[in-house]
Amino acid sequence: MAEKQTEISQLGEFGLIDRLTEGLEKVNDSTDTAVGDDCAILRYPEDRDILVTTDLLLENVHFDLTYVPLKHLGYKAAVVNFSDVCAMNGTPRQITVSLGISKRFTVEHIEELYAGIRIACQYYNVDIVGGDTCASNQGLVISITCIGDAPKGTAVKRSGAHDTDLICVSGDLGAAYMGLQLLEREKVASAGQTDFQPDFAGKEYLVERQLKPEARLDIVKALHEKGIRPTSMIDVSDGLSSELLHLCKESHCGCRVYEDRIPIDYQTAVMAEELNMNLVTAALNGGEDYELLFTVPLTDHDRVKEIEGIKVIGYITKPELGSALITRDGGEITLKAQGWNPLAE
Amino acid sequence: MAEKQTEISQLGEFGLIDRLTEGLEKVNDSTDTAVGDDCAILRYPEDRDILVTTDLLLENVHFDLTYVPLKHLGYKAAVVNFSDVCAMNGTPRQITVSLGISKRFTVEHIEELYAGIRIACQYYNVDIVGGDTCASNQGLVISITCIGDAPKGTAVKRSGAHDTDLICVSGDLGAAYMGLQLLEREKVASAGQTDFQPDFAGKEYLVERQLKPEARLDIVKALHEKGIRPTSMIDVSDGLSSELLHLCKESHCGCRVYEDRIPIDYQTAVMAEELNMNLVTAALNGGEDYELLFTVPLTDHDRVKEIEGIKVIGYITKPELGSALITRDGGEITLKAQGWNPLAE
Repeated sequence: MAEKQTEISQLGEFGLIDRLTEGLEKVNDSTDTAVGDDCAILRYPEDRDILVTTDLLLENVHFDLTYVPLKHLGYKAAVVNFSDVCAMNGTPRQITVSLGISKRFTVEHIEELYAGIRIACQYYNVDIVGGDTCASNQGLVISITCIGDAPKGTAVKRSGAHDTDLICVSGDLGAAYMGLQLLEREKVASAGQTDFQPDFAGKEYLVERQLKPEARLDIVKALHEKGIRPTSMIDVSDGLSSELLHLCKESHCGCRVYEDRIPIDYQTAVMAEELNMNLVTAALNGGEDYELLFTVPLTDHDRVKEIEGIKVIGYITKPELGSALITRDGGEITLKAQGWNPLAE
Repeated sequence: MAEKQTEISQLGEFGLIDRLTEGLEKVNDSTDTAVGDDCAILRYPEDRDILVTTDLLLENVHFDLTYVPLKHLGYKAAVVNFSDVCAMNGTPRQITVSLGISKRFTVEHIEELYAGIRIACQYYNVDIVGGDTCASNQGLVISITCIGDAPKGTAVKRSGAHDTDLICVSGDLGAAYMGLQLLEREKVASAGQTDFQPDFAGKEYLVERQLKPEARLDIVKALHEKGIRPTSMIDVSDGLSSELLHLCKESHCGCRVYEDRIPIDYQTAVMAEELNMNLVTAALNGGEDYELLFTVPLTDHDRVKEIEGIKVIGYITKPELGSALITRDGGEITLKAQGWNPLAE
C-alpha cells in the first residue's frame, strides 16, 4: 500500500478503539449502551428468546492473509456469527469484537478489517457493542460474539427433527470449498512473483462464496412470512455431511438425502472437473457455505416449495436406518463427517 | 506431569468439547439452553438490564505458562470477565469460552484449564453456555464473553460521577502487580534449573492476588443491601490512576485522591521495599487488582463506611481542577495513565 501507515503504538489501545468505533450508531432498540464502558447494556423485551454464539478465528488456521483481503476477512468474521443466529431461526442484533493484533499491522490495516465488520453490521442491522483489543505476538486473532433474538419459543434447535420430516437446504453447496481450492492454487502459482495476476475469470462466484459469504437471514424471514417453523436447523459451516449427522444425532433419527437433489452451482461443477475432484464429495464435505439446513414436517411441503432458493434434498428416518446418501444409480452410501476437524490435523 | 497424556487429535474437536462440558448443570433461571447447538438460548425477564463484556487473553502477552498453572489461568480468565459485570453493579450469569489450542497441549492440559474455569463458574454461580474450540499454530488463546444482569436502570456506568462525590475503592491495591514482579523474579532465578523451588514465604498473598484474583461480587451485593447505588464505577484492571482518569473523562469531572488513603497490604509494602520500587507508584499504576473503584454522593458517606473492605480515598471535583494525587506532605501530583498499554510496547 502506498497510503500513509500509522503505527498502532502512536494511538495506543484506547486511541485505536476510539478511531475504530467512531461514528457508530445503534440501530436496534435492544441496544441501550454500546462501546465505552466495562459492559454493554442490552434491553430485550420479555417476549424474546436471546441467542448467543461466538467464533474464534486465527491467522493461518482459519484464514490466510496472502489472499484474503482484510476487509473481506472482517466481513466474513461477522457474518459467520450472524449465520449461527440465523441457524436458530433468529435475528442477529449485537456483536462484540475482540482483536489480537501483531506488530506488523498498522492502524490502517486494522481500520480495513474493522471496515469489513462495520459493513457487515450495517447490511444485517447489527450493533457493535463492545470488545477487547490487545497486542498479539503471534498472528492476527479475531474473536466475535453475537447476540440475537427470536420471538419466545420460536428458536429452532438441532434436536427437533422427526421421522418423515423433509430435509431442506438453501442456496447451493460446495462453492466456498471450490473457491478455497482456487485461491490456494493461485497462491502456489504466484509464489515468488511480484506482478502475478490471479486468473478468476468465469469463477468469480466461487471466489465470492469463499471470501464474502452471507448469512441466510433472508431465508429466516421468508420462513417466518410463510408461517413455517422448522423442526430442526443448523448452518452448513463444516459440510453438509457433518451437519446432517449433527441434526440426526441431536434429533435421535436417521436420514436419506438424494445425490441428484443436492444444489450445486455450475461454476462449482466446472471447477471440480478442472481439479479432477469428485463433485459430490466437495458438496458433502466442503465447508463454509453458511447455507441453512433444516427440516420441516411433510405437511409444509407445498409452502416450503414456494420459497425461492430452498431445495428439498431428502427426508428424516427412524434412527435404526442410519444416515445415508442415495446415489444417482440408487445405491446407498453411509454419511461420514469428513468436514473440517482442524484439531485433528 | 507423570499422568497419562492424551493427544487432542484422538478426540477431535467435538470429542474434546463433550469431555470438557460433561456434567455441566445450569444454575441460572435465565439459562434456557447451554452448549450443544448453534447458539445458547437465554431468557431474561423484562425488568433486567443485560450486561455483556468480553476479554481476549493471549499466551506470552497476558500470561506466561512458565509460572502460571493452567487451572489458575482458567479461573482468572473467567473472573476478569465477572469483574467487568460487577463493575457495572451487575451479577454475572453466563459465559462462552473460546479456546485456540496449539499442538503442545494435551487433552489433560485443556481439562486443567477448563477445570479452573468451571471452579470459577461454580463459585460465582455462572453457567457455561457455549464457545468455540480450534487449533492454534501459535500459543494458547482464550476468549471469554460474559453475560450478566442488573435490575433495570441500576447498572452503573463510568459516566455518572458528580462534583463532591466521594471516591471509594474496595480491598487493597498494588498486590497483584507485586505478585507479578515476584513471579518474574523467581522465573529469572530458576532459569535453566530443574529442581528450583521458588521462595514465596511471607509473600503468599501477593502470589495469590496475581494468580487467583477475585471479582468483588460481594461488594456489589453489600452496596445493594445498604441501598447504595454508586454514581459511577469501574474495576481496577489497569491501575488506579488509569481507572480514575477513565471515570473523570466519562463523567466530565476532576478528582483528588489522598496518597495516605490508598489501601495497601503489608506484603505489598514489604515487596516494594525489597525491590526498591516506589510503593505509591505500584499502587497507582500496577494493574490486575480487580477491585471496584466507584463514586457515591456525599450523603452516602455513613452508609458506605459501614461496609467492610471499602475505603474512601478522595472526592470528585469540577473538571477544571484536573485529576491529582495529594501526597503525604500536601503536594499535588497530576495523575497520568501509566497503566498497561500493551499495544504501545
